[in-house]
Amino acid sequence: MIYFNNDYCEGAHPQVMEKLLTTNMVQTIGYGEDQYCEEATRLIREKCGRADIDVHFLVGGTQTNFTFIASALRPHQGVISADTGHINVHETGAIEATGHKVLALPSPDGKLTAAQIQQVCDDHFGDSTHEHMVQPKLVYISNPSEIGTIYNKAELTALHETCRKNDLILYMDGARLGYGLSAPDNDLDLPVIAELCDAFYIGGTKIGLLFGEALVICNERLKPDFRYIIKQRGGMLAKGRLLGVQFTALFEDNLYFAMARHANELAMLIKEACIKKGYEFFIDSTTNQQFPILPDTVLEKLSEDFVYSYWQKIDDQRSAVRFCTSWATLPENVQQLIAAIEKL
Amino acid sequence: MIYFNNDYCEGAHPQVMEKLLTTNMVQTIGYGEDQYCEEATRLIREKCGRADIDVHFLVGGTQTNFTFIASALRPHQGVISADTGHINVHETGAIEATGHKVLALPSPDGKLTAAQIQQVCDDHFGDSTHEHMVQPKLVYISNPSEIGTIYNKAELTALHETCRKNDLILYMDGARLGYGLSAPDNDLDLPVIAELCDAFYIGGTKIGLLFGEALVICNERLKPDFRYIIKQRGGMLAKGRLLGVQFTALFEDNLYFAMARHANELAMLIKEACIKKGYEFFIDSTTNQQFPILPDTVLEKLSEDFVYSYWQKIDDQRSAVRFCTSWATLPENVQQLIAAIEKL
Amino acid sequence: MIYFNNDYCEGAHPQVMEKLLTTNMVQTIGYGEDQYCEEATRLIREKCGRADIDVHFLVGGTQTNFTFIASALRPHQGVISADTGHINVHETGAIEATGHKVLALPSPDGKLTAAQIQQVCDDHFGDSTHEHMVQPKLVYISNPSEIGTIYNKAELTALHETCRKNDLILYMDGARLGYGLSAPDNDLDLPVIAELCDAFYIGGTKIGLLFGEALVICNERLKPDFRYIIKQRGGMLAKGRLLGVQFTALFEDNLYFAMARHANELAMLIKEACIKKGYEFFIDSTTNQQFPILPDTVLEKLSEDFVYSYWQKIDDQRSAVRFCTSWATLPENVQQLIAAIEKL
Amino acid sequence: MIYFNNDYCEGAHPQVMEKLLTTNMVQTIGYGEDQYCEEATRLIREKCGRADIDVHFLVGGTQTNFTFIASALRPHQGVISADTGHINVHETGAIEATGHKVLALPSPDGKLTAAQIQQVCDDHFGDSTHEHMVQPKLVYISNPSEIGTIYNKAELTALHETCRKNDLILYMDGARLGYGLSAPDNDLDLPVIAELCDAFYIGGTKIGLLFGEALVICNERLKPDFRYIIKQRGGMLAKGRLLGVQFTALFEDNLYFAMARHANELAMLIKEACIKKGYEFFIDSTTNQQFPILPDTVLEKLSEDFVYSYWQKIDDQRSAVRFCTSWATLPENVQQLIAAIEKL
Repeated sequence: MIYFNNDYCEGAHPQVMEKLLTTNMVQTIGYGEDQYCEEATRLIREKCGRADIDVHFLVGGTQTNFTFIASALRPHQGVISADTGHINVHETGAIEATGHKVLALPSPDGKLTAAQIQQVCDDHFGDSTHEHMVQPKLVYISNPSEIGTIYNKAELTALHETCRKNDLILYMDGARLGYGLSAPDNDLDLPVIAELCDAFYIGGTKIGLLFGEALVICNERLKPDFRYIIKQRGGMLAKGRLLGVQFTALFEDNLYFAMARHANELAMLIKEACIKKGYEFFIDSTTNQQFPILPDTVLEKLSEDFVYSYWQKIDDQRSAVRFCTSWATLPENVQQLIAAIEKL
Repeated sequence: MIYFNNDYCEGAHPQVMEKLLTTNMVQTIGYGEDQYCEEATRLIREKCGRADIDVHFLVGGTQTNFTFIASALRPHQGVISADTGHINVHETGAIEATGHKVLALPSPDGKLTAAQIQQVCDDHFGDSTHEHMVQPKLVYISNPSEIGTIYNKAELTALHETCRKNDLILYMDGARLGYGLSAPDNDLDLPVIAELCDAFYIGGTKIGLLFGEALVICNERLKPDFRYIIKQRGGMLAKGRLLGVQFTALFEDNLYFAMARHANELAMLIKEACIKKGYEFFIDSTTNQQFPILPDTVLEKLSEDFVYSYWQKIDDQRSAVRFCTSWATLPENVQQLIAAIEKL
Repeated sequence: MIYFNNDYCEGAHPQVMEKLLTTNMVQTIGYGEDQYCEEATRLIREKCGRADIDVHFLVGGTQTNFTFIASALRPHQGVISADTGHINVHETGAIEATGHKVLALPSPDGKLTAAQIQQVCDDHFGDSTHEHMVQPKLVYISNPSEIGTIYNKAELTALHETCRKNDLILYMDGARLGYGLSAPDNDLDLPVIAELCDAFYIGGTKIGLLFGEALVICNERLKPDFRYIIKQRGGMLAKGRLLGVQFTALFEDNLYFAMARHANELAMLIKEACIKKGYEFFIDSTTNQQFPILPDTVLEKLSEDFVYSYWQKIDDQRSAVRFCTSWATLPENVQQLIAAIEKL
Repeated sequence: MIYFNNDYCEGAHPQVMEKLLTTNMVQTIGYGEDQYCEEATRLIREKCGRADIDVHFLVGGTQTNFTFIASALRPHQGVISADTGHINVHETGAIEATGHKVLALPSPDGKLTAAQIQQVCDDHFGDSTHEHMVQPKLVYISNPSEIGTIYNKAELTALHETCRKNDLILYMDGARLGYGLSAPDNDLDLPVIAELCDAFYIGGTKIGLLFGEALVICNERLKPDFRYIIKQRGGMLAKGRLLGVQFTALFEDNLYFAMARHANELAMLIKEACIKKGYEFFIDSTTNQQFPILPDTVLEKLSEDFVYSYWQKIDDQRSAVRFCTSWATLPENVQQLIAAIEKL
């Protein structure tokens, strides 16, 4: 069986494991105040082109999302998200468990537009009974989105401006950020994101680490006391060094982007094979997640050798599925998949 | 100016005030353990035809909703509600503030169907990754709904059965319950509701009391320790007697239903006047809230003498508005409104 | 039976009831935006000698405490309180239910000292692992305290200065504030309290209202969006006018302080009778709550005619109890109690 | 510098690292449903002598505590803990952030007694106003305690019986459980703990893993839906395999207890050296944490070569400090420390 169902089927990239091994017996202080976290912070600041950002290392994506949101909002404030957003669907109500409503907006392509945000603000603040409704305060976007689409610079700038105008916080979930920034049609980079977002995270779990996400807080007002909140929400690893070591491995020689490019390139091969075969797509993605719409008969056959994620039924005869590549995906496995697709 | 904008513009019905006055200097113990609360409980049990229900008196509707829901659910469980439901829109995220997600379903008529509930359960429990999503556990309905529509016995029975089948709790928000049970097309009554719902509340604030809602818990499993939760959530009035006294006034001679009928009858007059004039309705309501769609020019004129609630824009020339009647509405004021409508 | 067990055995002072009656049929807008709330706000601002304070009317004390605290704190911040504080003992964990720890300090007299507060700050911020502990941020005091003692101006000034120095919020629970400000040894008044506290509330439930507490927010930083939080936590009464009407009755002719003085004077008579008889006191209180230590044999006899609150066992033969007076206490009932004490 | 300040200064035991390496490229499904978690669960069930226990792997101790407690309690229920308990002091209010009060009891030796628990229950349920107070429901103990002391079988049995009698949940924080079960004076083992506790966790972070705690739920009523809560609270690792792999390494050949014994033996050497020198102890510990009371002059000297944790000031000339050993502590480093102590 060859797994294409997600991008976290294996452990960590060998360079990451190597670094964990060679530092294993070094004694450090705990809770992320060690030299490795310091070095990883330095590297991330360098990549973002800014010395004034705060960098915090957390264990997982759900944890990073709710910890940041819990820290940023007052009790009556809510989070605007695409209805397909991870926080709205796949975090078992983690945001609500911190007391905040997710205000879900329809989004066929997994992205939010500045116009949508402005409309929410107009509706809310224009209403004389707005105190009876949740106050929109934070805009949650994912880049790439849950379905692999990415924001371009113009879109992100528009969101940024709308947020500034309405005093909203713009937060980017970057669980798969590397894949987005390495996409062929991408025009964003870390410095631009650090300029346009109040906070965002650079995902490690889905791009080559055992685990770990690097939260970057750019907005001065959101920085105070954040480590208290990390501790309270269970995100402060006793051996915080593990995160520092791993992120150092990611960024000291651009391994992060190299891995992402590898995954994207293999994903494009799958995409092309499907296109050639005349298959449609659930969504046009340029990153490591591909969502072809395949005949159920083909899917049945493919599932003898390959594992993919079932996405949704399209009609009586076809379903959308997800094929995921990662740093660990072997080109020969992709070739095997393509051969199977071509043959069917 | 004559107010038709809501059903809580005045204080309490004179009989209620009278009873508050005559009992004012009697010394009682506090926190709802007095003789008046006991008597009101006895009366409500009698009206519901069941001695085994728990009755708790709370101050307001939002408070009653979140107190019951906080008591009934475990942290990972959510509430299914119509997207127009009061808890989803007009309680400033009170449910989320207790940690629970509201799972909002589309509902043009303000009601939920058994089929919708079953679909949510099928989707959730059929999904292999359901642990990543909020578990549906409680169905919140309002009767009448936010837009004045009511459930009939067949619909409520179907909801009840679907809830039993899927181990869901069925809870009815009865902020305006009296208006619903007094509607011309109603076939429900308190004993049937007590049989089909796990819990519901009989609203007093909007039907003649200064304030107060009587929560009825029918399901044995939901009863333990409820008074702790009331206290914790701020709903335990030191002078709890005030609720007992008021609800005794409501039910000792059926004042509750008399007031509701009065309001409904006046609402029907307004409805007929609009129909006669050829106006359409946003929704067909048989209770004390009427939602005619009126030309904006007419509305402008009406607003010189009458206060109504603006509901929503329908097209370039027309808007839906709400006219509300109550126990306190004077027939002559309704006649004045009708005359104005007929003239315009 | 004559009740001395608490100060909320009856309904409201007749002048309050009268005002509720005469305004009963006036139509107003809801949720505390009516003319009565406006007038009550004006009166309270006048009494406090400041036009720049925000006044909000809530229903009960527990609700007022947790609503204000929820609004004021970030998730990692806690509340310093005397271990006997109402929020620490008698609110069923309402503060914790909003997510915040109560940091309880020992306090034999029910009060906190500036030195205690400073020590908590020194311990917390001096510790290198302070991120692992709750950050002290709000000081909760009650005046009078749970056991009837009061703060003088020097003590409150010292607390104020310590809070300023350590960037803490000073909040006074004034459930019985009137009794405190009317005590013979009191040197505080509303303007001084408004100057020294960041927020406080003027309790109505225990001084002559049916219910109601007036929260005064003095610190500019704590004002924004407070009405959202009231709504979310269930404190926004649909017929908010009821609070405006009642507080207007309290303050338009100083009824509030007249009632408190009445209660205090009667309490002093009880106190003197006990002293004359040679009984000790659990605590020396100059307000409407008196805590004599009486022989259990005497208590048994007294309980035939009088209801009091049992406080705690002192030794094998004696217990401390609480006698409470209020605006409603009849002088002849106090005389009867005194006669009984003298006789025993 | 030689670190004795805690037991998590290094990475993981080499056998653990080895197993992570050799399994690194195996493709597995995510979220703890892989073969390694299955195997680790099997091993832990075997060690506990029971097939009917649920085993869940979480990342850290604070997370494990609040996730279990959030799952087990209703909103009005609280946790009884020693005042020195980790949840009461060093988790930044994580339990309160889930809505629950910690009811702290004085405990000079870091342990709770059955008599203390019974007293809390008598006080609470005997009081007529108990609905105004937090309901005690869960007893949190740590074994070893925060200061290295351990429970014996008689004590744990008494706690168990008191909990059964009062319908309380008994939960053991086993962050350092291995050290406790390997102490010379210990008479507990995993099967007995699984019999007497409703739930407990076997700590990995402080005994040789990179990270990871294995929560064991023994009580049937506490098992349902626990994975939902793990996900919601951020404890569900995408690469859950990492926990399965590590715990398999710990238990497939008793590495866990071998490491703990190693640490305890070295701790005893430090203890003896202090005793020989005539130093007193803050507490008599038989596990890997030792708390000698040393002259400040000696401490100053020692700190040139050794890192320890400062515990507390004892008098003008002496302080209690903590020396910690672990699986990674080198015997020669302990000898160096002892030599230094002897010399001073």
